[in-house]
Amino acid sequence: MRHNGSMNARAAITPRPSIAITRSERKRQTREALLEAALELLEDRSFGSLSLREVARSAGIVPTGFYRHFDGMEELGLALVDESFRTLRQMIRSARAGRQDTTNAIRASVAILVRHVHEHRLHFRFIARERSSGVPALRRAIHNEIRLFSSELAIDLARMPFLGDWSSEDLHMVSGLLVDTMVSTAEAILDAAPDDPAAEREIVRMAEKRLLLIALGVPRWRPSTAASGGERGERRADGPS
Amino acid sequence: MRHNGSMNARAAITPRPSIAITRSERKRQTREALLEAALELLEDRSFGSLSLREVARSAGIVPTGFYRHFDGMEELGLALVDESFRTLRQMIRSARAGRQDTTNAIRASVAILVRHVHEHRLHFRFIARERSSGVPALRRAIHNEIRLFSSELAIDLARMPFLGDWSSEDLHMVSGLLVDTMVSTAEAILDAAPDDPAAEREIVRMAEKRLLLIALGVPRWRPSTAASGGERGERRADGPS
Repeated sequence: MRHNGSMNARAAITPRPSIAITRSERKRQTREALLEAALELLEDRSFGSLSLREVARSAGIVPTGFYRHFDGMEELGLALVDESFRTLRQMIRSARAGRQDTTNAIRASVAILVRHVHEHRLHFRFIARERSSGVPALRRAIHNEIRLFSSELAIDLARMPFLGDWSSEDLHMVSGLLVDTMVSTAEAILDAAPDDPAAEREIVRMAEKRLLLIALGVPRWRPSTAASGGERGERRADGPS
Repeated sequence: MRHNGSMNARAAITPRPSIAITRSERKRQTREALLEAALELLEDRSFGSLSLREVARSAGIVPTGFYRHFDGMEELGLALVDESFRTLRQMIRSARAGRQDTTNAIRASVAILVRHVHEHRLHFRFIARERSSGVPALRRAIHNEIRLFSSELAIDLARMPFLGDWSSEDLHMVSGLLVDTMVSTAEAILDAAPDDPAAEREIVRMAEKRLLLIALGVPRWRPSTAASGGERGERRADGPS
């Protein structure tokens, strides 16, 4: 509620700057400026190639000022990872909650993911690149966020009556597969030309079909399918029989 | 047939070097040395950060000598992409060929993938990183190789009698899902500690289960499932009913 657009805020501030912008608010703004400057510099570069000095300069502060906000570049990178995932998880969760049918839950989840990728394109480009990049702390943080996603989904799945007899490992297996499909969808959206809505519609359609195919396999899965050596699963998987 | 191990080759060469090592053979060796030097430098770095000068120095040649083998760094990068995929595709293909049951085909394919990642760890690390990196030509080449994989698999699937009525789009959808699962398995193997066989066994088990779950969904898929608005698919997907 504090932000009514930057123009209004500035107009209100001008007469009494020392009152309207508190010190902590100014600090928050500089922190934001550093994060934004880093994200923009990262559009076509890897995080490992970015220097603290560049980020500070681009945000309009002196390099020593950087340390009032972050211990170093790694902490800034971790804050970007955190920003990228924070809202997405809540949104996908709310898309699933309360939906009785799989197809609609799939559609809603894919739609939210796509919208989110568009709205936070630079964040997702950063995530897509650093997920397998050379900065171990970031790689780990991103993997943990994705695993957290997958665990939350596994918990939701565990509550579904027809998954009551699934082992925890198998629930994680299917949630991991669903989340990986979402990750590769997000990456395909990023790689598609931004001015090609037909390509994007195809990515969305394929994502929905993939998720639906996985959902169709679920009722045929038996906890023993893989553990027993697969003799049963193998016949079941081979055709409509 | 020319190579009987390097020790034998060297013993045979010593008396008549100018005859035993032809000029084209020497050129091939230098090219190999450049590729290997680049791969090793790339273990913890992105391709975009690598200079031609570094690669040449590390291979023991002068920078101008580099151009006798590659037009520039990009061409070297593309040669590395090519090397990484060439043998893998053949191997996976032969794992599928002639197998009648899905479970064994899945096991064989995962086992080959894992062995291949171990044997070509540096190649796969390079691929995993550059798949979403900042060098567009490499990114495109890697995506094309993965798409080629997926297309070949779609062709194999099309030959299976119970997939006879599937549309080409749906065949590509399922092959893409299978290939993406292989890609994320390869990345998990790369990220696992190399001295942790238990972690690797778990990755393999999860990969097999994921692929099997997808295979279980296949007989329940109907070409109209997604296209018709999903009303049918939705019910089918919701439980054992």
